[in-house]
Amino acid sequence: MSDLNVNLPTPLHANNNARAVQTAEQHPAHSLSWLEDAEHGIKVPVTAISQADSPDGTPNEPLKVYRTMGPGSIPEQGLAPWRAEWIAARGDTETYEARGARLEDDGRTAVRRGAPSQQWKGTEPVPLRAKSGKRVTQMHYARRGEITPEMRYVALRENVDVELVRSEVAAGRAIIPANINHPESEPMIIGKQFLVKINANIGNSAVTSSIDEEVAKLEWASKWGADTLMDLSTGNDIHTTREWILRNSPIPIGTVPIYQALEKVDGDANALTWEIYRDTVIEQCEQGVDYMTVHAGVLLRYVPLTADRVTGIVSRGGSIMAGWCLAHHEENFLYTHFDELCEIFAAYDVAFSLGDGLRPGSIADANDAAQFAELDTLAELTQRAWEYDVQVMVEGPGHIPLHKVRENVERQQELCKGAPFYTLGPLVTDIAPGYDHITSAIGATEIARYGTAMLCYVTPKEHLGLPNRDDVKTGVITYKIAAHAADVAKGHPGATARDDALSKARFEFRWNDQFSLGLDPVTAQEYHDETLPAEPAKTAHFCSMCGPKFCSMRISQDIRDTYGSAEAQAAIAGMQQKSQEFLNAGGQVYLPQPTIGAPK
Amino acid sequence: MSDLNVNLPTPLHANNNARAVQTAEQHPAHSLSWLEDAEHGIKVPVTAISQADSPDGTPNEPLKVYRTMGPGSIPEQGLAPWRAEWIAARGDTETYEARGARLEDDGRTAVRRGAPSQQWKGTEPVPLRAKSGKRVTQMHYARRGEITPEMRYVALRENVDVELVRSEVAAGRAIIPANINHPESEPMIIGKQFLVKINANIGNSAVTSSIDEEVAKLEWASKWGADTLMDLSTGNDIHTTREWILRNSPIPIGTVPIYQALEKVDGDANALTWEIYRDTVIEQCEQGVDYMTVHAGVLLRYVPLTADRVTGIVSRGGSIMAGWCLAHHEENFLYTHFDELCEIFAAYDVAFSLGDGLRPGSIADANDAAQFAELDTLAELTQRAWEYDVQVMVEGPGHIPLHKVRENVERQQELCKGAPFYTLGPLVTDIAPGYDHITSAIGATEIARYGTAMLCYVTPKEHLGLPNRDDVKTGVITYKIAAHAADVAKGHPGATARDDALSKARFEFRWNDQFSLGLDPVTAQEYHDETLPAEPAKTAHFCSMCGPKFCSMRISQDIRDTYGSAEAQAAIAGMQQKSQEFLNAGGQVYLPQPTIGAPK
Repeated sequence: MSDLNVNLPTPLHANNNARAVQTAEQHPAHSLSWLEDAEHGIKVPVTAISQADSPDGTPNEPLKVYRTMGPGSIPEQGLAPWRAEWIAARGDTETYEARGARLEDDGRTAVRRGAPSQQWKGTEPVPLRAKSGKRVTQMHYARRGEITPEMRYVALRENVDVELVRSEVAAGRAIIPANINHPESEPMIIGKQFLVKINANIGNSAVTSSIDEEVAKLEWASKWGADTLMDLSTGNDIHTTREWILRNSPIPIGTVPIYQALEKVDGDANALTWEIYRDTVIEQCEQGVDYMTVHAGVLLRYVPLTADRVTGIVSRGGSIMAGWCLAHHEENFLYTHFDELCEIFAAYDVAFSLGDGLRPGSIADANDAAQFAELDTLAELTQRAWEYDVQVMVEGPGHIPLHKVRENVERQQELCKGAPFYTLGPLVTDIAPGYDHITSAIGATEIARYGTAMLCYVTPKEHLGLPNRDDVKTGVITYKIAAHAADVAKGHPGATARDDALSKARFEFRWNDQFSLGLDPVTAQEYHDETLPAEPAKTAHFCSMCGPKFCSMRISQDIRDTYGSAEAQAAIAGMQQKSQEFLNAGGQVYLPQPTIGAPK
Repeated sequence: MSDLNVNLPTPLHANNNARAVQTAEQHPAHSLSWLEDAEHGIKVPVTAISQADSPDGTPNEPLKVYRTMGPGSIPEQGLAPWRAEWIAARGDTETYEARGARLEDDGRTAVRRGAPSQQWKGTEPVPLRAKSGKRVTQMHYARRGEITPEMRYVALRENVDVELVRSEVAAGRAIIPANINHPESEPMIIGKQFLVKINANIGNSAVTSSIDEEVAKLEWASKWGADTLMDLSTGNDIHTTREWILRNSPIPIGTVPIYQALEKVDGDANALTWEIYRDTVIEQCEQGVDYMTVHAGVLLRYVPLTADRVTGIVSRGGSIMAGWCLAHHEENFLYTHFDELCEIFAAYDVAFSLGDGLRPGSIADANDAAQFAELDTLAELTQRAWEYDVQVMVEGPGHIPLHKVRENVERQQELCKGAPFYTLGPLVTDIAPGYDHITSAIGATEIARYGTAMLCYVTPKEHLGLPNRDDVKTGVITYKIAAHAADVAKGHPGATARDDALSKARFEFRWNDQFSLGLDPVTAQEYHDETLPAEPAKTAHFCSMCGPKFCSMRISQDIRDTYGSAEAQAAIAGMQQKSQEFLNAGGQVYLPQPTIGAPK
């Protein structure tokens, strides 16, 4: 790692491509900047947001905020596999006669056609796995006391000591999802000691979508701040869609392998077998999927507990496995083969996302026996995965009324010994289809405040349809709000820097800075310009709410001017003292003698 | 009140007008229905939402939900003054030589033109006030042990005992804003024992808007569920705009009289006097404003406490009064004349909304000395108003990080002896201009959960511009979510009925019912139809997320079918017993012997 540049994603960094550079930044005031750990040759991208001077001429330093380097790849080429060097340097991986891709992995339409709708056109990566007897997980290294470049990268990114990163990963309280076959990804950490993260779901279905659209959604989601992305495709070309996504993704990719396994048996859940599932998992491990949702906690004996629910089982994976258990009258094969899964995951550093297949689908079903029974099993499975040094996070609901939210995370943290909690919302009411990004952001902020490490976004289309580009952005921004509000509530160091910078800009009428410091500068500016489109209005000391004649911000500015001088500060001290004397004199505030001035 | 129909708003009820009937309902499955207290001749409108039968043929009763009767008036005619009979029957009011309207009340443009841009065309009401020595407030009656028709109306509407209404109003813990000069309004109650309410702000400014637009916003806001509306106009035709709004409003109207007073002195805060303010208040009392924000807590000695804030004073009223105090070096005339204001309010039953002029405008300034100093004064003023039997609510912030929200309401409730708290959001982060309906709904749900009685909505345009029609709707729906989620979290009786009905419809694939039971049926259906527009999809047992081949809801339906019979229930009991036996045998769940079936 002597030459840093060599190791960075080529398209955005080294060149050249106007489209890439254009799409990577949210706003002209944003630019790519770097945090550096020169000693270890680590550079982490941040967005520098430039600011205008204050009205009194004081310069305002650019604000540096967390970002991913990507998006910015040329989709047909993908990102550079810059992390490959770190992986190779550990000497514990090897190439092998891999399973590789098969046409049938893309479904019956592809088989009939003789090809997926769009082949992957970039370099075909050669899959790696752990050498025999080795485990290549970040948890494994952390437990051995090793500090990996991935951990250093994360520490720099989070502005924390690398030992905190190592010890949290070693203890299972944080994960760094980093499949050795996804060397394009920028390491990130999920754990309650760190910034709250958000996941965006995309994926085609049997009804709609194309590969291009899904890659565009990835770019779009990571541009606006998604920390990980789940590809939940259930339609055609599942394998190839995932290949395009992985090769272009700077953020970890998660999947639910049972979805593809189900496609392989043409949607007949009863025809699923461990062998088909295992084969699908290996296919995805080789491609580079960083974490997989596994519904191993849906046990046969828990299924009847859902019979009296208002909304039964609403998790797709959960209902697939419940259906399978019932049809075969056998225990869930994900549970009975869990150790084998652990061995596979340890060979690629795939993290478990232990699925909550029995999560409530309505507030009526929240915190019920089925949900908590499954959680007990997820706690057991967490321990079992840790025996293989496999990283684990645990998924959580769903639909929970606000007063029952906190119990969810506290119970999960206790039972699962601090393994990161990863929740979908939760939605705090069921009555607002079309607005479930909002109903769920309320619950998400609450649950993150008490320790949930990652929030799975919900878009306005939840329960109604597949999200389009606008919905993805709305979902991401809404969840950035929830995650950030939780960081602030948790007192995360430095969390309020952006709030304070934006509020200062607001107070000083630096309109352009208000836009660019926000999570969505484009929308903020559009809204402003609807009422006051003229460029002078961007520097005007008023806004459309009060108009030019009167403005509250201007009056407070005057107050500050009045009380800002040394002389004025002395006067304030005098006023405050008089006020205190007055209160000390007996607190007669009902009809007070005026302490200052001469009221009528 | 022998003939109920006579007393109900004419346009919607008795006739006729296609536009009115069309705009009053949100969806074709919604219809106007009634709750009746036949003994006392009270009828309260509710929306009945019809539902399809369940797949097994079981009928689903229409769900009845809270609503206002209006909108539905013909704007040029206004609503019928149906509450006038109740007011007259009390015999404690009289007509008098009223101040009435003056051309200059509409501002300089109207004076120059010789008329406002649009005259009020309906009946000119004759203002009433209390007879000499009388107080005509709902609090006065409640304290005397009288149960008014307004209280009965509210009790029926809230599905509570009328004695709860009376006693809460008597104690000051709830208010029924009901100016005797606004007989078109439908009584509603604001207090923490009742459903959480929401307020929508509208109003023109010097920069933009017309009378027609403001009336349309009123109709629109109340159609989607605003419980009260504040007219914050600061532009031209303030008096006449308000007249149109009041005559058409089924919900209580609030104002901030200092805004109009400021217009009367051409925006020069220093030129304000108690006399001009008092005259404006009387003008508005005669028109029928139900509650007024009064920034009487901004005391001269508190002003310097804001000098070191990140965002100073952000309340318009607060900064007007702070500017005035500073310029004159005198105590706030709203504070020094507060008793006189109480006398005026008692004569019309106008409620105080004690303004928090020093509320924080950024999370950095939350819960600071200036904010809490003012709250101490608002507590004092609450007591003082109660001595005049004047109803009071207390306004709250603003911008508060989530972990500091609860303290706000608990402190206010303690200091102000349970007077209803009425908060703006609060926004839990400052970094998302364009999304402040969401940043604030998070804080609003939290603060309502702990006792805030009414939430002032925030639209996506907050901080950026004036809300248009879409923004008003988004703000209202977002706040209906916050208020409802808080009702659910508080365990308000019956609060989950709508959630449960919608979730049941969702589970049973009654798509049209999912739309119509939601807070915004139009948007929900639009979103659904983007992906699956065909009519058969509305009854299909699948949705666009999973497609027709596989559907989790269908599988759970199968589980219920499997376990729904008496035979199956016995089987469940058996399974659960076996499970329990298994656990009793030592809880060896790490590598369990299968209790059921024969796993591989």
